[in-house]
Amino acid sequence: MNYGDIAQSRLTAIAGCSLRGDGVTRLPFTPEHRAALEHILSWTAAAGLQAEMDAAGTLIARRGGPGEGKTFLIGSHQDSVPNGGRYDGIMGIVLGCLALEKLRNDGVSLPFAVEVFAFADEEGVRFPTALLGPRALAGTLNTRDLVRADRDGITLGAALAAFGGDPAHIPALRRDPTRILGYLEAHIEQGPVLERKSVPLGVVTGICGIERNALRFTGTTGHAGTVPMADRRDALVAASRFITAVSDHASRTNAIRATVGTIKVAPNAVNAIPDIAEFPLEIRSVDDAARASFADRMHSMGNDIAAASGLTFDMDRTYLQPAVACDPVLTNTLAKAIADSKYPAVALPSGATHDASAMSDLCPIAMLFVRCKNGLSHHPDEYASAADMGAAVDAIAEFLRSLAS
Amino acid sequence: MNYGDIAQSRLTAIAGCSLRGDGVTRLPFTPEHRAALEHILSWTAAAGLQAEMDAAGTLIARRGGPGEGKTFLIGSHQDSVPNGGRYDGIMGIVLGCLALEKLRNDGVSLPFAVEVFAFADEEGVRFPTALLGPRALAGTLNTRDLVRADRDGITLGAALAAFGGDPAHIPALRRDPTRILGYLEAHIEQGPVLERKSVPLGVVTGICGIERNALRFTGTTGHAGTVPMADRRDALVAASRFITAVSDHASRTNAIRATVGTIKVAPNAVNAIPDIAEFPLEIRSVDDAARASFADRMHSMGNDIAAASGLTFDMDRTYLQPAVACDPVLTNTLAKAIADSKYPAVALPSGATHDASAMSDLCPIAMLFVRCKNGLSHHPDEYASAADMGAAVDAIAEFLRSLAS
Repeated sequence: MNYGDIAQSRLTAIAGCSLRGDGVTRLPFTPEHRAALEHILSWTAAAGLQAEMDAAGTLIARRGGPGEGKTFLIGSHQDSVPNGGRYDGIMGIVLGCLALEKLRNDGVSLPFAVEVFAFADEEGVRFPTALLGPRALAGTLNTRDLVRADRDGITLGAALAAFGGDPAHIPALRRDPTRILGYLEAHIEQGPVLERKSVPLGVVTGICGIERNALRFTGTTGHAGTVPMADRRDALVAASRFITAVSDHASRTNAIRATVGTIKVAPNAVNAIPDIAEFPLEIRSVDDAARASFADRMHSMGNDIAAASGLTFDMDRTYLQPAVACDPVLTNTLAKAIADSKYPAVALPSGATHDASAMSDLCPIAMLFVRCKNGLSHHPDEYASAADMGAAVDAIAEFLRSLAS
Repeated sequence: MNYGDIAQSRLTAIAGCSLRGDGVTRLPFTPEHRAALEHILSWTAAAGLQAEMDAAGTLIARRGGPGEGKTFLIGSHQDSVPNGGRYDGIMGIVLGCLALEKLRNDGVSLPFAVEVFAFADEEGVRFPTALLGPRALAGTLNTRDLVRADRDGITLGAALAAFGGDPAHIPALRRDPTRILGYLEAHIEQGPVLERKSVPLGVVTGICGIERNALRFTGTTGHAGTVPMADRRDALVAASRFITAVSDHASRTNAIRATVGTIKVAPNAVNAIPDIAEFPLEIRSVDDAARASFADRMHSMGNDIAAASGLTFDMDRTYLQPAVACDPVLTNTLAKAIADSKYPAVALPSGATHDASAMSDLCPIAMLFVRCKNGLSHHPDEYASAADMGAAVDAIAEFLRSLAS
């Protein structure tokens, strides 16, 4: 059995560590999490790693290096969304373990230590916060997050302690950046780009920054029968012009992903001209300046559309998360490692947030994307092939060898 | 006091026949309706008319004509929407009474009889049906409507009988069309056209036909961060292109009023690309052929927009009410009567349904619109000025004189 097949069979087995129902439902600090750790420990043992859980509930498996050398980090998260798939998060852990198993089987020695992390909570489903493990390592955890409760009233701190963690010890988990070479995370793409290009692996250029805005066109309502078209100040028509233009403008660049996912009009009757149309505009980009400039353009375009029809327009930013750049040296090394494994290295942004976002506060990061069937994720039908995962194991192993040379 | 001031003071007084709350709430066959009839009887008495309520609850006030001559009909409705205004409906009754009062005061004799109708129920608010009075006269009442109940479970028939009507006698109310000269209804415009043109009165060309359609664009959902713009099949973007185009196309013609008053998307999350956008399209026109052709064009435009982005489009007609033409001879006579009263006669369609819609099954119809402040109707702030109503009284009186000559 090759590494890809082993990955597939391990992921099938660990998918059983789930609440009942479609797909995988594995929340942090639960019996399902506990059961999953038993699987992960068997993977780390097969790679000859020393494993233990840290105070933040992260399982850390270490391959020692010579002397007082530095450490390279590999990680991902064990948890899933409700009724999620078998790959999101957990695949990154299995691929990291298999890459180290391959290096051991191939008799490769490295001049640095390697640690594989199985973070407890990236999805933020159980608690209204996430990324406990990487934030603890980076020293960026807001300790107030530990008193946030799940819907049963159990706080994150209490759940962690009951699971064998130690909230009081979290500050001591902070790593010394000078001792860390970098962090690599492998993840399914969760999008259609690699499948469209018919390649198994992609190199992530950065993790998109995200801004959300609350938008509103305000016009004048009226009877659908009695107000001539020329006299209308129809908020939905203005919103439609705007949403069309957002899509057209964003499509003219590779830098921007802009989405209107929901919309509400008032008075909301079949025969009443809408006087209010409210909707959010989410803009993502790996280029913060491009994102900000796009938002500015859309703001003035909204004003223009409103002015042309006698409406008013409001746009208020409600959320901002800056982009995270992947490290050029690590990313370049990863791209070469993929190319050495005979696949083209497609560069693409990550539209979603990952553990790597939090790890970037500690050290340089890189991310490897694995092709995802039909671009589907957070869904029971989420799928990556054994062959693609095998290619990822090869690429990660080659990446670590290249770092050593 | 001139007729306009009398109209205003009568409408102020009868507005008191209302349930408590903002504006006027006067539903058919209620104590408020009963109280309103006392006011209306005083108006008919002042015009020297003979009044009685018919079996369908319509108060009919008659000015006799010579011998076995024909009868001209004038009418409107006494009821309001909840928290409606002081003019919608009831103003047409007061103006008809005042026009006959003026003719009497001026000593004008007519070679035909005139009847003024105060219909019970045009708004269709209390019962899930409307236009009982005019349908009874036209012989188009579906007697199944009499068993439709209000939200207290009282049927229309029972409410009518308790009010002094006689459901069993309704079929006998049907008028002989050969004995009827025509029907005139005066109504506030309920739109902004006359105000924009700074004229008090308008002549209605016809009552818009109405069709409603259920529309749906179906695309593919996906993560707002991971799906590049070029790979999206976004149902809301397609719907936005469509709604924009509907407005642009309808604005290029005077014949069409097209409205999207509500919209629903799925999955309806800020960070999910919508795969479904559903909304109604209402199209109104006095020209049924133009309406049908516009609907056809929008249907194929929807298909084109969907095809261009890999979505599907569905459009199903859910409601159809044909247009009602106003009689050219009566309408022309009305326009001349307005012009004789020194105002320009602006021709405009009625976007809303009226008692005249049902009366058109009995006889030729004409409609006179009175300027409406801010285009506002079905609202406590609904307003027509005494001067404009005075002009309407003059025009109706002159219209009746012209018919006689």
